[in-house]
Amino acid sequence: MKTKAIFYHAGCPVCVAAEQSVASALDPSRYAVEIVHLGTDKSRLKEAESAGVKSVPALVMDGAAFHINFGAGLDALK
Amino acid sequence: MKTKAIFYHAGCPVCVAAEQSVASALDPSRYAVEIVHLGTDKSRLKEAESAGVKSVPALVMDGAAFHINFGAGLDALK
Repeated sequence: MKTKAIFYHAGCPVCVAAEQSVASALDPSRYAVEIVHLGTDKSRLKEAESAGVKSVPALVMDGAAFHINFGAGLDALK
Repeated sequence: MKTKAIFYHAGCPVCVAAEQSVASALDPSRYAVEIVHLGTDKSRLKEAESAGVKSVPALVMDGAAFHINFGAGLDALK
């Protein structure tokens, strides 16, 4: 069974770079990667915060939030 | 041909978590991942800085530095 990984972003240049390099580099045989745009899908903000996401871009996997560089704080997306 | 990715760390808990989750999740059929401990291999500090690494843990791939959360600044390792 594949492990789920969620990549949260907001369309910013820093986000796009992280998505194209890091998120897309994950092993597709082990990870099912979901891409969530928090700028357009604000209904997912609460879930992201609960997972420990403080800023985007961020990758949530193995129960932890990994912030990849800094594009925007979550507060800026509310 | 595989793309090279270098994961720089310093043995800190934040670094270990990022290594075990993010670095080890990269697709091995596309990426050759090298793990560099900057705390013990200070000869690689200059190279890391040149690649744009400001703190560890960081992943350098596709010509860009992706800082994953924050463990320690590079200056603390000199």
